[in-house]
Amino acid sequence: MEGFPSPKHLLLLLFTTTLLLVSLSLRSFPTIRSLSSRRLSLRGGSTGTDGAGETMHVHKDPYHPLDPLTYNEIKAIRSILASHPDFASPNTFPSIHSLSLLEPEKAVVLGWRPGDTLPPRRALVVAYSANHTHVLPVDIASRRVLRHVVRARPAGYPSLTPEDMERATKAAAAHPDVINAILYRGLNPSSGVICGPLASGWYGPEEENRRVIKVQCYAKSPNFYMSPVEGLTVTVDVDTDGVIRVSDQGLGIPVPRNRDTDYRYESQRRMPTTEAVAVNPMSMEQAGRPSMRVGAGGHMVRWAGWEVHIRPDARAGMVVSRARFRDPEGGGAWRDVMYKGMVSELFVPYMDPGEGWYFKTYMDAGEYGMGTNAFPLLRLNDCPRNAIYMDAVFAAADGTPFVRPDVVCVFERYEGDVAWRHTENPLFGYDIREARPKVTLVARMVASVGNYDYTVDWEFQMDGLIRAKVSLSGMLMVKATPYGNLSQVPAAEDLYGTLVADNIVGVVHDHFITFYLDMDVDGPSNSFVKVHMETQETAPGESPRKSYMKVVREVARTEEDAKVKLKLYDPSEFHVVNPSRLSKLGNPSGYKLVPGATAASLLDLDDPPQKRAAFTENQIWVTPYNRSEEWAGGLLAYQSHGDDNLAVWSQRDRKIENEDIVLWYTMGFHHVPCQEDYPIMPTVFSTFDLKPVNFFRINPIIRAAPYTEEDLPVCSGVDATL
Amino acid sequence: MEGFPSPKHLLLLLFTTTLLLVSLSLRSFPTIRSLSSRRLSLRGGSTGTDGAGETMHVHKDPYHPLDPLTYNEIKAIRSILASHPDFASPNTFPSIHSLSLLEPEKAVVLGWRPGDTLPPRRALVVAYSANHTHVLPVDIASRRVLRHVVRARPAGYPSLTPEDMERATKAAAAHPDVINAILYRGLNPSSGVICGPLASGWYGPEEENRRVIKVQCYAKSPNFYMSPVEGLTVTVDVDTDGVIRVSDQGLGIPVPRNRDTDYRYESQRRMPTTEAVAVNPMSMEQAGRPSMRVGAGGHMVRWAGWEVHIRPDARAGMVVSRARFRDPEGGGAWRDVMYKGMVSELFVPYMDPGEGWYFKTYMDAGEYGMGTNAFPLLRLNDCPRNAIYMDAVFAAADGTPFVRPDVVCVFERYEGDVAWRHTENPLFGYDIREARPKVTLVARMVASVGNYDYTVDWEFQMDGLIRAKVSLSGMLMVKATPYGNLSQVPAAEDLYGTLVADNIVGVVHDHFITFYLDMDVDGPSNSFVKVHMETQETAPGESPRKSYMKVVREVARTEEDAKVKLKLYDPSEFHVVNPSRLSKLGNPSGYKLVPGATAASLLDLDDPPQKRAAFTENQIWVTPYNRSEEWAGGLLAYQSHGDDNLAVWSQRDRKIENEDIVLWYTMGFHHVPCQEDYPIMPTVFSTFDLKPVNFFRINPIIRAAPYTEEDLPVCSGVDATL
Repeated sequence: MEGFPSPKHLLLLLFTTTLLLVSLSLRSFPTIRSLSSRRLSLRGGSTGTDGAGETMHVHKDPYHPLDPLTYNEIKAIRSILASHPDFASPNTFPSIHSLSLLEPEKAVVLGWRPGDTLPPRRALVVAYSANHTHVLPVDIASRRVLRHVVRARPAGYPSLTPEDMERATKAAAAHPDVINAILYRGLNPSSGVICGPLASGWYGPEEENRRVIKVQCYAKSPNFYMSPVEGLTVTVDVDTDGVIRVSDQGLGIPVPRNRDTDYRYESQRRMPTTEAVAVNPMSMEQAGRPSMRVGAGGHMVRWAGWEVHIRPDARAGMVVSRARFRDPEGGGAWRDVMYKGMVSELFVPYMDPGEGWYFKTYMDAGEYGMGTNAFPLLRLNDCPRNAIYMDAVFAAADGTPFVRPDVVCVFERYEGDVAWRHTENPLFGYDIREARPKVTLVARMVASVGNYDYTVDWEFQMDGLIRAKVSLSGMLMVKATPYGNLSQVPAAEDLYGTLVADNIVGVVHDHFITFYLDMDVDGPSNSFVKVHMETQETAPGESPRKSYMKVVREVARTEEDAKVKLKLYDPSEFHVVNPSRLSKLGNPSGYKLVPGATAASLLDLDDPPQKRAAFTENQIWVTPYNRSEEWAGGLLAYQSHGDDNLAVWSQRDRKIENEDIVLWYTMGFHHVPCQEDYPIMPTVFSTFDLKPVNFFRINPIIRAAPYTEEDLPVCSGVDATL
Repeated sequence: MEGFPSPKHLLLLLFTTTLLLVSLSLRSFPTIRSLSSRRLSLRGGSTGTDGAGETMHVHKDPYHPLDPLTYNEIKAIRSILASHPDFASPNTFPSIHSLSLLEPEKAVVLGWRPGDTLPPRRALVVAYSANHTHVLPVDIASRRVLRHVVRARPAGYPSLTPEDMERATKAAAAHPDVINAILYRGLNPSSGVICGPLASGWYGPEEENRRVIKVQCYAKSPNFYMSPVEGLTVTVDVDTDGVIRVSDQGLGIPVPRNRDTDYRYESQRRMPTTEAVAVNPMSMEQAGRPSMRVGAGGHMVRWAGWEVHIRPDARAGMVVSRARFRDPEGGGAWRDVMYKGMVSELFVPYMDPGEGWYFKTYMDAGEYGMGTNAFPLLRLNDCPRNAIYMDAVFAAADGTPFVRPDVVCVFERYEGDVAWRHTENPLFGYDIREARPKVTLVARMVASVGNYDYTVDWEFQMDGLIRAKVSLSGMLMVKATPYGNLSQVPAAEDLYGTLVADNIVGVVHDHFITFYLDMDVDGPSNSFVKVHMETQETAPGESPRKSYMKVVREVARTEEDAKVKLKLYDPSEFHVVNPSRLSKLGNPSGYKLVPGATAASLLDLDDPPQKRAAFTENQIWVTPYNRSEEWAGGLLAYQSHGDDNLAVWSQRDRKIENEDIVLWYTMGFHHVPCQEDYPIMPTVFSTFDLKPVNFFRINPIIRAAPYTEEDLPVCSGVDATL
C-alpha cells in the first residue's frame, strides 16, 4: 500500500479518476474523439453526417423543423444567454442543465413541407444558479429569450451537471471520516478507490430545500461495480459542497475482491476457448442497395412504406417523430400514425430499506439523461454491419456544444422469420405454399446509465406495426456481504437479494420504462377505445355452448376511463382510433397498443419513491395533448416530491374523446438477480407493439415477393460443410 | 352455370376436390414428391438425410434411442400387426390413427451412450375398427404386440384419418338437401364448391357413442376460406357414413365472392409494386463453417454449448429431447436441462354460439396432429438460406410408411441484437466499450392445420436460455354476413367478430398452446419453487422508505401448490431446481420459466369445450413424471369428455417435491380480427423462456469474442449507397 497522500493530492486524483456513476454530459471533444478514433472501419453507407464528424456539425444547417439543434445553433444560444441582462455579469451565468430543441407548435410542423422555410428555431434551456432554476425558451434568429421563468427552491431540480458531481464527490472524498473509512478497509484512498455520486431521491428533511447527492465508493478495478465499499455513504449538499453526513455501517463487511470480474475481451481472451462460446460470426447481407433512404438533414428516414424522423435527445435518448405510412392503396397518400414516441422516464427502485440502499430509486431520464449517457455505439457489435449511424450534438454545462458520435444506429433487419405464410393441404386440389420473409427497420440507442445499459429499439415493420423494445444489460448494482454461502445467512430474506458470488449480493430491483406515445392516427383527433373481452353466458336453449367470449367496445370519455391496470382474466385490447375516419366497412381507422410481458410496481402508493414515480401506478394512461406534459416524472425530476407528474396531471380528468391524445405505456421488469448475472448480465428485454387495426383495407404486405436464390448476395469464404 | 350433375358424378368430383379442412395424413408419395420437386436449390449443407430423400429413409437405421421410427421400421410394424391373430383376417385390419416411437424408459435413454446397442425399438399404435379403439405397443425385433388394450365406445376417439374425412365429406355432399342448398346459392355443386370435415367437439347426445364429423362448404377459389357457404352444416356419423342432420340457417346470407383474396405471388405480382413492399432481400451469411454439427442418425444437433435431439412427430409436430449444456467450467461436463419439450395440445375455441359455429373448439394436436399437418417448409422463405432440413416418416391409415420432406428446419440465427454489453463512462478512467453479438440456434416446424399456420420455434441461446415461440399466420376462419357496413348491423356484438371485408366477419377466437416440458435440471429429481414477490412494509423508524418488494421462496409440495394463474400484481418467478445440486454459494441449480405476453380462457369451467380443454385453466401446472401423461387433452382427444386430461390427472394432488417432474405451460392469444387479417394474416407470435438461474457459476458467455470486419463474409453485389 502506498503512503497516505496529502488531501490536495487526494483531491486531484479523485478528480481524475472520479466515478461519475450517474451519467454526465461529456464536455470535452478530445475525450470523445479519442473514443471515436477506436471506430471500426465503416461499411454500409454514410452516417447521416457524412462521416465528417465535428466539422460537419459546425457548419450543418437544420433541414426539418424537428431536426435537433446544431453545433452553431447551440453556440448562438449560449451567446444569447450570455448577453441576457440577467446573466450579463461574469459570475451570474448559470450552469446549463438542459439545452435542447423547443419543438414548434404541432400545427406548424404538420403544415411544413420540404422546401418551405423552417419555422423559427428555438431552444428550451433549463439552467440553475444559486438555488434558482431558470426555464428559458430562446429564439435563435431574433436572439431573444422569450420568457424567463425563475423557480426559487422548487420541489424538484434539473438533472445534475458533471460539475455538480465532481464537486460533490471531491467534497465527500476529502472528508477525514471517509479517508479513515477507506484506510480501515485496507484500500489506498488515492489510487485504490473510485467514488461516485448517486441521486438522492427525496425522503423529507435531509433533502428538503437543498440539492443533495449521495457518494459511495468502490475498490478500483475495470469492473469496480463488483467491489463496493459497503456501508459507506456520504451525503453532500451540492450547492454548498458541504458534507451533511458520513454514514459507515459496513465496518464488518469485507470489500469483495473477486478476481474474475473483468469482462473485457482483452482479459477474457486469455482464457481457454470453450465450445459454449465458439460460434462462427454471422452477418446480415443484402445484394444491391439498401432499401432505406436518409433525407436531407440526416434525420428523416424512409423505408418500405414508412417515413420517420429520428433524432438523438439528451433526456429521452432518442425521439422518433412524424411516423407516417404511405398507404399502398388510395393513391399512395401518406397517413399519420404517431407524431412522437420516446422514453419519457425510467424508474429503478432497489429493494433494500437499509441506510446505504433505501434512496436508490433512480429516475434515469430526468435525473441523469438517457442521451447524455448514450456513448458511441460499438460498430459490428452493438448494431449489425449494415447499420448507419447518427451523431448527437449536446450542450455542456457551460453552454458550449459538443459532438457525441454514433449515438443512434439505424438498420434493416432480417431475422429469419416470416411476415405471413400459408401452405394449402395439397389434397384440396391447390398446390399452394407461400411464405414471405420478414424484414424490418430498426432505430437503436443505448444509454449506459452508470452500471446499467439500456438498449432502446424502435422497429418498423412492413405490415405497419411498430415495435418498441428495451433490452437491459451491463452490471448489477451489488452489495457486499460477509457471507460466502447461503447456509451462513440467518434469514435469506435479509439479504434483499441473491448471493451471486463470494461476498456479493445482487440486490432485488425493478425497472419501469415509461413511454410517451403521441398517437395521431390519420390526424390528431383520436379516441381511446378499450375493446373489452368478457364471458357471456348463453341463454337456456340458445346453444350447446354454455359460454363464449364477447367483445364490447368502451370509448374512454375522460382520463379516468383510460387508466389501465392489466389483468389476465379481465382483458382488453387498447385501440387509439380516429372516429372520423371510417373504412368502407364502417370500422374506425386505428392502432392498438399491445403490451408485452411486463411487471407492475409493488411499492406502497404513499412511499416517497412511488409518489415521485406515480406514473407507474397504471400500465396505461391517456392524456390530452399538452406541450408541457412530456416528462412523466416532471420537468424537474431531481428530488421531485411527486407533485408534478403524469399522475397529478391526470387527476384533472380531462376530456380525451375525439381529441389530440397522448398514450403512455409503462413497461416493467422485476429483477431477482442470479449467478448468471455476474459479473456482467446477459441481455433481457421486453417489448410492446403499436399495431394497425382497421387502418388498412387489407393486409398491406400481401404483395411482397418471396425470395429466390438469385435475389441473395454471393458471399466468399462460406463453407457450408457440417 | 353448368347442368346439374348426377349424384355419382358429384361424388367423384367431391372426392377429388374435397376440402379436407382439417389436416390429414398424406398417404401417397407422388403427391408429396411433386411438392418436393418444387424445392429451391439447396445451399448451406445437407439435410441431415443427405438429401437422398425417400431412398435414404428406406434404408436408414436409427442411431439414437429417441430417433423416430424409420421407413423400414414402420413397414415391419405393419407386418407385425397384419399377422397378429386379432387382425389376421382380411377385413379385421384396423385403420391406423397413430403409429409412432414408443420411447424407451427414461432411465434406459439416460444410460445409453453413443456406440451402445440400441434399446429395443418399439412403437405405440393407436388403431380403430368397428367402434373399438386399439392401443398397441409393438416390439419390432421380437415382432410382438406387447399388449392389446381395446376400448369399446370410449369417451374420446383417436384423431381422424383421411379415409374418415373423405367418406364423411362424400356422404354429406351426396345428400339431396345439401345439393339443393348449394344450388339455391347459385353455386355449381360439382365444380364450384369445396367441402371439408370439421371436428365436432363433444356437446352431449348428438356426439354420444358415435364418431361425428361436421361438414361445411365454400365457394371454390384459391382462397376459398374467404367464401363460406354460411349456415350450411352437415352432421355425419363417420362409422356408418350416415347423415345425421342437415342444418341450413344461411339462406339469406350471400356467399362472399370478393375478388382480391388470392394471396399467391403468381396473382399478386400482376399488381403494381408499391413502396410498402419494395424491400431488397437480405440474408444471414457466415464466413467459414457453420457452428452447428449434426450427429449420426441426423437428429442430434450440437451447437455452442448445446446438444439437443430434434425429431418430427405426427402429433406434437416436433419433439426436442435430451437438451444438455456443456458447462464451460467443471471440466466441460454435459449437464441435463430438459429431457423433453413439445407442444402437447392446442385449443382453439371460436366465440360464436350459433348452430354453424358453436362446435368450432378445436384441439389441433389430438384431433388432427401438428406433424401430420406439417408440410414441406418453403426454402429461403420459411427458413433462412443457412438452414438444414429434416424429413419426417409417418404412417398412413393403412399402416404403410411415407416420407414428408423438409418438415423441420434448423438454423443459426443472427438478428443484430447483443448477448451482453457495457460501455464505461470514459471519465471513470477506463476506456471500456464491450458488446457481444447474439447468435442463437433455431429449430422450426410449421403446422398448417386447415386455415391456420402455426410456426413453432425452439431457440437455444449461448447463455443457456431456451426460448419457445409460436407464430400464427394463415387465413382467418370467417363467417358470411349480409352486411357490408357496420352501420347496417343492428348490434355489433351479434356479429361475434369484426367486419373485415364485404359480407365477411372475422370471428373472435382464442388460441391456447400447451407445452409439455419435462425438465431434468442436473438430473431427474427436481422441485418447483415459486419465488414470490410481495410488498413488505418497513417498521416505524426502520427506514425513510415505507415499503420494498420482498422475495419469498415457496417450494411446491404437491400438484395443488403448483397450479398458477398469472397475476401482474401478485408476481412470482417459477423455478425448477435441483435441491441436491447446490452451487458453491449454496444456491440450488435451476431453470426458471419466464412467461411471455399471454391470454387466459374466459369460457365457463363447466362449458363442454372448456371441460375438454381444462388444461388451459391454469397457465402453469407441475405433475410428477408419468409416461402415460404426455397429451394434455388425453390420448384420445377426439370427442373427449374431459375425463382424461391434465386437469383430471392433477386432481390426485401428487407429491412433486424432489421428484422427476414435468412442467406445463399454456401460451394464449385472444384474437379479435381486423381488416389487416384479410385476406391473409400477418404473423403474430408469443414466447416463453426457460432461463438458467444459478445453474452456471457465472455468465457463461463472458468469454465470447466481439466481431471484427475480418470475421465477416465478403459478399458481392452489395451496394451500400443510400
